[in-house]
Amino acid sequence: MMSASCATPTTPNEEMNGAGNLMDFLDEPFPDVGTYEDFHTIDWLREKSRDTDRHRKITSKSKESMWELIKSLLDAWSGWVVMLLIGLLSGTLAGVIDLAVDWMTDLKEGVCLSAFWYSHEQCCWTSNETTFDDRDKCPQWQTWAELMTGHAEGGGAYVLNYFLYVLWALLFSFLAVSLVRVFAPYACGSGIPEVSTILSGFIIRGYLGKWTLLIKTVTLVLAVSSGLSLGKEGPLVHVACCCGNLFCSLFSKYSKNEGKRREVLSAAAAAGVSVAFGAPIGGVLFSLEEVSYYFPLKTLWRSFFAALVAAFTLRAINPFGNSRLVLFYVEYHTPWYMAELVPFILLGVFGGLWGTLFIRANIAWCRRRKTTQLGKYPVLEVIAVTAITAVLAFPNPYTRRSTSELISELFNDCGALESSQLCDYVNNPNMSRPVDDIPDRPAGPGVYNALWQLALALVFKIVITIFTFGMKIPSGLFIPSMMAYHHHDWIIFKNWCRPGADCVTPGLYAMVGAAACLGGVTRMTVSLVVIMFELTGGLEYIVPLMAAAVTSKWVADAFGKEGIYESHIQLNGYPYLDVRDEFTHRTLATDVMRPRRNDPPLAVLTQDSTTVEDAEALIKDTDYSGFPVVVSRESERLIGFVQRRDLTLAIKTARQKQDGVVSSSMVYFTEDAQQLPASDPQPLKLRRILNLSPFTVTDHTPMETVVDIFRKLGLRQCLVTRSGRLLGIITKKDVLRHMAQMMNQDPESIMFN
Amino acid sequence: MMSASCATPTTPNEEMNGAGNLMDFLDEPFPDVGTYEDFHTIDWLREKSRDTDRHRKITSKSKESMWELIKSLLDAWSGWVVMLLIGLLSGTLAGVIDLAVDWMTDLKEGVCLSAFWYSHEQCCWTSNETTFDDRDKCPQWQTWAELMTGHAEGGGAYVLNYFLYVLWALLFSFLAVSLVRVFAPYACGSGIPEVSTILSGFIIRGYLGKWTLLIKTVTLVLAVSSGLSLGKEGPLVHVACCCGNLFCSLFSKYSKNEGKRREVLSAAAAAGVSVAFGAPIGGVLFSLEEVSYYFPLKTLWRSFFAALVAAFTLRAINPFGNSRLVLFYVEYHTPWYMAELVPFILLGVFGGLWGTLFIRANIAWCRRRKTTQLGKYPVLEVIAVTAITAVLAFPNPYTRRSTSELISELFNDCGALESSQLCDYVNNPNMSRPVDDIPDRPAGPGVYNALWQLALALVFKIVITIFTFGMKIPSGLFIPSMMAYHHHDWIIFKNWCRPGADCVTPGLYAMVGAAACLGGVTRMTVSLVVIMFELTGGLEYIVPLMAAAVTSKWVADAFGKEGIYESHIQLNGYPYLDVRDEFTHRTLATDVMRPRRNDPPLAVLTQDSTTVEDAEALIKDTDYSGFPVVVSRESERLIGFVQRRDLTLAIKTARQKQDGVVSSSMVYFTEDAQQLPASDPQPLKLRRILNLSPFTVTDHTPMETVVDIFRKLGLRQCLVTRSGRLLGIITKKDVLRHMAQMMNQDPESIMFN
Repeated sequence: MMSASCATPTTPNEEMNGAGNLMDFLDEPFPDVGTYEDFHTIDWLREKSRDTDRHRKITSKSKESMWELIKSLLDAWSGWVVMLLIGLLSGTLAGVIDLAVDWMTDLKEGVCLSAFWYSHEQCCWTSNETTFDDRDKCPQWQTWAELMTGHAEGGGAYVLNYFLYVLWALLFSFLAVSLVRVFAPYACGSGIPEVSTILSGFIIRGYLGKWTLLIKTVTLVLAVSSGLSLGKEGPLVHVACCCGNLFCSLFSKYSKNEGKRREVLSAAAAAGVSVAFGAPIGGVLFSLEEVSYYFPLKTLWRSFFAALVAAFTLRAINPFGNSRLVLFYVEYHTPWYMAELVPFILLGVFGGLWGTLFIRANIAWCRRRKTTQLGKYPVLEVIAVTAITAVLAFPNPYTRRSTSELISELFNDCGALESSQLCDYVNNPNMSRPVDDIPDRPAGPGVYNALWQLALALVFKIVITIFTFGMKIPSGLFIPSMMAYHHHDWIIFKNWCRPGADCVTPGLYAMVGAAACLGGVTRMTVSLVVIMFELTGGLEYIVPLMAAAVTSKWVADAFGKEGIYESHIQLNGYPYLDVRDEFTHRTLATDVMRPRRNDPPLAVLTQDSTTVEDAEALIKDTDYSGFPVVVSRESERLIGFVQRRDLTLAIKTARQKQDGVVSSSMVYFTEDAQQLPASDPQPLKLRRILNLSPFTVTDHTPMETVVDIFRKLGLRQCLVTRSGRLLGIITKKDVLRHMAQMMNQDPESIMFN
Repeated sequence: MMSASCATPTTPNEEMNGAGNLMDFLDEPFPDVGTYEDFHTIDWLREKSRDTDRHRKITSKSKESMWELIKSLLDAWSGWVVMLLIGLLSGTLAGVIDLAVDWMTDLKEGVCLSAFWYSHEQCCWTSNETTFDDRDKCPQWQTWAELMTGHAEGGGAYVLNYFLYVLWALLFSFLAVSLVRVFAPYACGSGIPEVSTILSGFIIRGYLGKWTLLIKTVTLVLAVSSGLSLGKEGPLVHVACCCGNLFCSLFSKYSKNEGKRREVLSAAAAAGVSVAFGAPIGGVLFSLEEVSYYFPLKTLWRSFFAALVAAFTLRAINPFGNSRLVLFYVEYHTPWYMAELVPFILLGVFGGLWGTLFIRANIAWCRRRKTTQLGKYPVLEVIAVTAITAVLAFPNPYTRRSTSELISELFNDCGALESSQLCDYVNNPNMSRPVDDIPDRPAGPGVYNALWQLALALVFKIVITIFTFGMKIPSGLFIPSMMAYHHHDWIIFKNWCRPGADCVTPGLYAMVGAAACLGGVTRMTVSLVVIMFELTGGLEYIVPLMAAAVTSKWVADAFGKEGIYESHIQLNGYPYLDVRDEFTHRTLATDVMRPRRNDPPLAVLTQDSTTVEDAEALIKDTDYSGFPVVVSRESERLIGFVQRRDLTLAIKTARQKQDGVVSSSMVYFTEDAQQLPASDPQPLKLRRILNLSPFTVTDHTPMETVVDIFRKLGLRQCLVTRSGRLLGIITKKDVLRHMAQMMNQDPESIMFN
């Protein structure tokens, strides 16, 4: 029945052991009764009203004593404290991950003799013997071949290095996939589709748990270091959300209210993007635009705070060794020309096409994985893909290194001191003079060489990423998507440069291309441009970026409305009601509600003519999550709605604790029970657990309005009436099924309640 | 009955002349019938469903022919076209306003001989005779005294200049207030409270009209040039929204749907802030955070586009003569120290206190204006305030100039070439060498002098702004608020500087102070920080800005939750349901609905037992904007809701066009009219205008849920039922009244339907 993206979840019955502390619920006010079962959707309105109750209680208590006043102040501040903690922890984790990935990526090639825990760059930086020209080479850093055979060069050394490179990669990825399988099945994948689904009000127990946090952090390092074509940006959002969930448990305000908890998680997602790219504002907008469902203004402000704290924590750790906040800091501020908009828009078209292609191919592959034998051997799959990646990646210097290193090289402009092959223009004989006018010089052989290698790298990355994303290890998509640009723009760059005089900035093309591809794959818009804008720290390039992003989105949208995350949500059948989908069909509530024509009538309770036995039979025979309560079966006039869970608990508790409640006892939902003859068994009064304000619509309500109501109010179910008579019920699942049906998709793919 | 902030609106009956083109509505599908009366709130759900209908129609037609397909594509693109036009026009207007203000502000002091249409700065820039040191002085520019008497210096010249300065100021402000009174009463004030109210779904005809646009643009220039303590930023938002409204009328998609129109207006507000500050992202966030009510993601993207186009249009016009996008571009990137957070937070506290003080004093003054004789002489008031401002402003060089010039000087760091008095440190004898270490030099007499003048300017600005904001001329608040900082930080700056060595950046303090004051007054948070961040173009100062903004907001919130705009909305009794107010009282729908106990019963129509005469009597006797339709008066079971306007039109049309419909005709809302005896008059079938899906809640629904529903779904009214029986009705006005009552405010202050 269930099919999470990359893990088999546990059965949904486990949480019943939480019932113990609810035994005495009949003495408690109603709203504390309800908690949710695993894989169920929450009722936002109810959560909100529970929080208001709690708040009201604290406010009224705070006038009683000094201590209560302090407690109420602490309660008011707890939101900011949680944000601070999330920012600190996610910033720290991101820093640690960056450092560990650096070190382990280099470990595949060699080791630092002076201190084995140094990465290649750190090793040579601390060494004083290195000259400025050749920062990458220093005696302390030895490749494995050098260390073992003493020879740095030659065919033997190359083969040995190659072999060890592949071996390390296999070791890392094997460790990663095994850890995920054994300890935390939820730690796999990018996590963004699931986080979106959780934020929209779905319960997946353990998805944001402590174990997931720990294992995801460790395996993320392993997976990225293994050289697989995946990024750490998406998983960082998942990691940050785990942090958010962790700190929620410190405050009952958040741990006991699923709605409030989601406010914290939205902010945590912003902090995650903030540390992934060093873009706090972009992070907040990403959370607003992409992952969040309910985003009140208060959350906006707090998200911003969390994102900033996280970004500054990361800066304090300084993993990139340059005191910069951002991953790919670019220094150039050369202007661009209007005519350049044409190639920028072409890049956008390319990005949109690539996005469509990628989504289609990846979804097809993932579907195959789900439905065929392939899905049964996840470890083998990971090992195989790692082996192919490593074997093909080593010979090409652009794929051998980590992807983020490559991107940062491509983004940067060539300076006179740059040792990169891409900047190998024929230099003037007078080397000492700073050379500003690089494009005037003819391209050296290195550039042509580099172009070939980049073209190969592009094709390789495109193909391998399709197979990598969705495997059972932590995998992000951002960076691999950003990869897919470079060849294209280099060609253009060359064509442009022929004329001579004022030439273009290749780094800018790389950046615009990256934005276009990322936009095509994820369909992000404002947040994408803002992230890119924060990377460059200036408004100069906002128009090129925007032109590319908007073209890419339009082109990709022409082939299919959904981004990669929505596609994966759909693939996995999560009950996610996208705020962006517009429902434009002309159906009415009556077409969607259950029971359908010819179905048995709706399972209802009556307000004063049901016995305990009847109620128990109803619970046993059906699996609905709640029952409408009507005046009588004849009039069918609705008076309220009772949750299945609450009813079960109430009857169970009453049978155990309340003497005289037997199977033939009457259940009363009315305010005053009728006076019964003494011979009758004691009645069971359940008005307390009755929701007297169930949400209703008429049978003539257009479905677009119903969808809007479900979306905006976050309902779980809605009753359908006609002039006061109860006709049926519409649940969120019914709405999603109907929407799938209208889009000619299989309505049965929506799996959860 | 009505009381707009600074204009007496026309009577609400005028729009009935729009009824002519609705005559044949009985043949049309239902949704096109409804339009709204002036000073009524719109029903967002209905607008949305009307748009979906329209969209559906176009989509189905587009398959018929090529021409229809092109039409549907044009329709899909019209949103982007409108955004482009808004961006272009509001950018252009902002540029023109900037240039005109520059010129007219300088006109108060003198004139450019070489070309009278040059401002002081332009005049001396184009002159080649000026030296680099003294850019402000050149022979072409002559003060009035110079021109008329030939003497530039001396007591006589000073008095003459003084006199003419005041005269010009009086002329400008008299022109401004007269134009507003005669041509466009809605052009006065900042406009932001009204724009917020309109965006929340209220109809104020003419507030965003063509005349308002024209007069507001002209009078804004006059008002700012007159030297009054007001800014052009708020009014620019109003101007941009007028542009938005103007372009809406080009496309029926927007002009005929009040909901879609508001999407465009939200984006226009973003464009307005974008040109006001040169901060496109800040503009979008401002629109999202402060003024918008319904902000779907599609609008976010389009707002961003409009904001960017506007910003780049402004840059192309280049009113500041420096190719910069922003008003106050700052060059410095010196780091700040952790310890400086203490003064930053103090600045925040000061800003919060100033915000509270300002709001209270200004609201008290505005209330006095509304309730006493004072309000009857708006022209005199403006003249008096202008005279006081001009007389007091001239002697102090910091108040004589335009406020934005002053701010830009304060924001800037002292360079060696700076001729500002604030930078008058004792220079090293060797003037030719660039002096980088300014703080090491002792402050010269100019600095002390400047400090005194600034202190006076601060006090003066604070007092005069309280009286200025809310007068019957276009007046913005942003810039005056930003004014209120400088003295404070200069004191701190001096204390800090004593130690010597590494000193602080005074411009940064000015900026942080500005953010704090603006935050205290408007309670903006994220958008404020982002605007400031865009001004500086770097993440360096985001922590100081945020610390100050957050402190300022907390301090100000401690004294009262409302910002200046909300206060003015409340003062004017606009029916604005703030998304930020949390309703935490324990009341139920039954406490709020009408009829109250002892009231006459609810005015209802029955589905098949009302005559045309009865219906007409009901329309005549009541002024409700709609009537519930029930099965019968006995059962009171609700079947739908009919709008007053639709009912009136339907009966009127039927009486004119449909033979046999007389006073005794029966009105049927049922699907099939009963077979009547031939002797009976012909019945009137009105099911078409009946809304079959009225929104209902039960009488037990907590008011917090009801408030939430009204807010999120943008309802106009909601019916209250108990087990299918209609009990009463709750309108948006009832909700607002109840909220006011709960906050111990006068519920009768909410004026409109």
